[in-house]
Amino acid sequence: MARYRLSLGALALLLTCLAPQTLCLWPIPRSLSTGSTALTLANSFDIDIKIPNAPSDLTAAVSRSKSFLRTDRLERLVVGRGSGDASAVQHAKQISSLILSLTPGSKVQSIADEAILQIGSRREEYSLHIPSDGSSATLTANSTLGLLRGLTTFEQLWYDFNGQATYTLEAPISISDSPAFINQLHWHISDSQSFPLQVPGFTEVSAKGAYSSSMVYSPQDVQDIVSYAGEEIDTPGHTAIISESHPEHVACPQASPWADFANEPPAGQLRFASPATTNFTAGLLAATAKLFPSSLFSTGGDELNVNCYTQDEETQQILSETGQTLEEALDKFTRATHGALEQLGKTPVVWEEMVLDHNVTLSNETVAIVWISSANAAAVAAKNFRIVHGPSDYFYLDCGGGEWLGSDPEGNSWCDPFKTWQRSYTFDPLANITESQQHLVLGGQQLLWTEQSSPENMDSIMWPRAASSAEVFWTGATLPDGSPRNVSSALPRLHDFRFRMVQRGVNAIPLQPLWCAIRPGTCNLDS
Amino acid sequence: MARYRLSLGALALLLTCLAPQTLCLWPIPRSLSTGSTALTLANSFDIDIKIPNAPSDLTAAVSRSKSFLRTDRLERLVVGRGSGDASAVQHAKQISSLILSLTPGSKVQSIADEAILQIGSRREEYSLHIPSDGSSATLTANSTLGLLRGLTTFEQLWYDFNGQATYTLEAPISISDSPAFINQLHWHISDSQSFPLQVPGFTEVSAKGAYSSSMVYSPQDVQDIVSYAGEEIDTPGHTAIISESHPEHVACPQASPWADFANEPPAGQLRFASPATTNFTAGLLAATAKLFPSSLFSTGGDELNVNCYTQDEETQQILSETGQTLEEALDKFTRATHGALEQLGKTPVVWEEMVLDHNVTLSNETVAIVWISSANAAAVAAKNFRIVHGPSDYFYLDCGGGEWLGSDPEGNSWCDPFKTWQRSYTFDPLANITESQQHLVLGGQQLLWTEQSSPENMDSIMWPRAASSAEVFWTGATLPDGSPRNVSSALPRLHDFRFRMVQRGVNAIPLQPLWCAIRPGTCNLDS
Repeated sequence: MARYRLSLGALALLLTCLAPQTLCLWPIPRSLSTGSTALTLANSFDIDIKIPNAPSDLTAAVSRSKSFLRTDRLERLVVGRGSGDASAVQHAKQISSLILSLTPGSKVQSIADEAILQIGSRREEYSLHIPSDGSSATLTANSTLGLLRGLTTFEQLWYDFNGQATYTLEAPISISDSPAFINQLHWHISDSQSFPLQVPGFTEVSAKGAYSSSMVYSPQDVQDIVSYAGEEIDTPGHTAIISESHPEHVACPQASPWADFANEPPAGQLRFASPATTNFTAGLLAATAKLFPSSLFSTGGDELNVNCYTQDEETQQILSETGQTLEEALDKFTRATHGALEQLGKTPVVWEEMVLDHNVTLSNETVAIVWISSANAAAVAAKNFRIVHGPSDYFYLDCGGGEWLGSDPEGNSWCDPFKTWQRSYTFDPLANITESQQHLVLGGQQLLWTEQSSPENMDSIMWPRAASSAEVFWTGATLPDGSPRNVSSALPRLHDFRFRMVQRGVNAIPLQPLWCAIRPGTCNLDS
Repeated sequence: MARYRLSLGALALLLTCLAPQTLCLWPIPRSLSTGSTALTLANSFDIDIKIPNAPSDLTAAVSRSKSFLRTDRLERLVVGRGSGDASAVQHAKQISSLILSLTPGSKVQSIADEAILQIGSRREEYSLHIPSDGSSATLTANSTLGLLRGLTTFEQLWYDFNGQATYTLEAPISISDSPAFINQLHWHISDSQSFPLQVPGFTEVSAKGAYSSSMVYSPQDVQDIVSYAGEEIDTPGHTAIISESHPEHVACPQASPWADFANEPPAGQLRFASPATTNFTAGLLAATAKLFPSSLFSTGGDELNVNCYTQDEETQQILSETGQTLEEALDKFTRATHGALEQLGKTPVVWEEMVLDHNVTLSNETVAIVWISSANAAAVAAKNFRIVHGPSDYFYLDCGGGEWLGSDPEGNSWCDPFKTWQRSYTFDPLANITESQQHLVLGGQQLLWTEQSSPENMDSIMWPRAASSAEVFWTGATLPDGSPRNVSSALPRLHDFRFRMVQRGVNAIPLQPLWCAIRPGTCNLDS
């Protein structure tokens, strides 16, 4: 039985998705208005791209949207699942098309090209209008990326009536939207245990460092996956696996007990004091960066273990010969590796330790990801570096799932408790950031580490939880009706998002019993 | 990044599944011996049932085992995944059959019939012998249920070599096995939000109480599901949904705020002081019990909310007219409902509150499930009632996954933290139980409540965690080599079990990175 322990909950606002200004959209747009007229999609409904030479990834996105509009079978999450809408649906006007266009003077380029523009020059805003008289809906933006965002919103406006009609009850709908922050896929592609990426010129690293010849990413795989992804090769720590192909570049490989030499097994870190290792690393990073269109490239820099180098004869010999300290050698290594990336037009990304714990030279463009604690963001901002929020106390999806290290009888994860969607949703990107520093906050990320993740639990560990950060960083602190973001008004919309994902085949987990999901607010702590 | 916080771990025993006496079996048998001779299954391998008129569910079980032996493709979890076994496999003797037989004088009846015998008369022990000379393996038991257990063990002895051979390296293998405790599927089929079971004579309850006409269990569904299951209709609490069909029998239906009237929404409890409600409930329970072959039937009895009855005029009127206290009425209700079940030969099962919190008459045969805290088992034993362990502090699979009640900005579950497999595995069924009371401990259960469970996460929330209790209650406190059960020696076997499940199509989650899984002990806290 599920005993309920009383705890203080926020005041429940008995909002449902159907209250004015609260369409079931996720993330909720910055501004929207709705009416109370029913509309259905005509059987002949089409999406008309009024753009000369539309790029192929835009036409592909339009095809996806049309397919979802045909196949989505989500009934409204209300008692009766919309069966009471029969008459409204029967008498509804039909809408026969959505017209896509770019604002005059906009450059026509692919979504992929728009998505990798330097931060600050990227454009994602769009306007979407759906009249109530059955005339065409319009979606306009000043970039194909903005049109993609608008299509995703349009898809979420519609419900299924008995498989007979696709409808909304809230026309006219007018949406004007743009993201509050930048979001970008961050692919941490190597770690202590495996190096699965095939890097041209360095294929021996994955040949000997991948789990098997079939468990690798080829350059073609990368192209398929990461048109929109920033990329990370973690250095100089978490590189034990490189010793399989290049023992000469790795200090304390698989040293025991591993906990004396690393934060996770196996131990092993790049000999960054060695010029040969520095050249190898710069070359590896540059060759990898060329695989990725994104302007962002992370060199890692987390959890460096000093003892590994104190015990490493070769490192100590180099330091004494050159009269350098370990930190001075790290600075030299960082300047060389970051320099190689900057020559390729890449913006270096590092984990917070490189800014807060080490004395290394970093360009002002460098982006620091705050991960150890949300409390550390202010210190990074004080050093005038740009910030991506990825704090383990809010956004680590794998926390609270149990210890993966062996021989622990309690077996709790290092970052307990589980980070609920509510916890992530209440994150404030600007907490303790002065107004003059706010421009440094680029956005945030929800992270999934894969010690205990696999295709078996990928969906259920991510969804719908990972959607919480999407609204935190897209919508910002305020809902379109002017009220602050809050878990009570978010829940009905997040249910809607989850049910939509499920009927699209994503194994997103339920947030409440169905009884509660179709009775918004009824299962609140204080209702 | 995954920062590692130091905690005290048990001493790591660097056991692998391949150390003597530790075949990768789950649960590990009570007694086993192994050799070091390689054996393969002949292409013509068959399972030969030397039993006249073998029951159909035994022949079906044999067919399943033969299918698994053909289709399992699990490579050994060692570096190289067994590629080094080529020569051993090539020169291995072949085994061409497994012979199943019952010990002389054993009654021949179906597995289903064996599985529902009264506790204490059930027989599950078996002996399994696999010679190293290629002669037939033998599986003997004194019941078809024992043979089923033995088949499940036999299936786990074999690995795949390149899709070319199915082999073991440890013949001869001799196993003698029997469960330390009783385990049984417990199906909690109704709760506050939904009543999905179609009960003959009471079909209106599910007609109005199920989520929809398609979200029900028909009597035929029940037959298909629960040949081996004990069953529960929760009463008198958690019955709000019955008010949809029988408002006259339910006090405080959907009263608000629900937390004043129930431990979870919606509020609503059976008016047990009412003779009409008592008759209705006894009839409903009896009609339901007839659907289930099991001798165990749970009437619930958890989380009774007194305020619901204090506020219920009808209940108060009955109490004053009859001069009864609420507890006296509850006693009368319990005797009537349990009496109806006992007339059908059923053994009543209740949640611990009925023993510890209420003054109701219960037969000595009654089984109490301890759920609130493992610390309460001793008190139940002191009252001389039989115990099934299901403590929320060890065995609740849904703990730590987040709050399902709305408007909670932190959103932690009531029974945080997540119950890891390690936590469940270290449970001691006899803790604080005196020797003279030990016979009262029947077994235990790992529970999955479904507020946040669905087909989308069923596998990943259960597996491999739920396997931990299987070894706690089957194998008992001691491993076959005489050492105490411990998480360090369990991990390699649990990996094996998990990988076997995955290649059978179960979405069991990974416990460690593959790098660790194929290097037993290397990723222990203290290695």
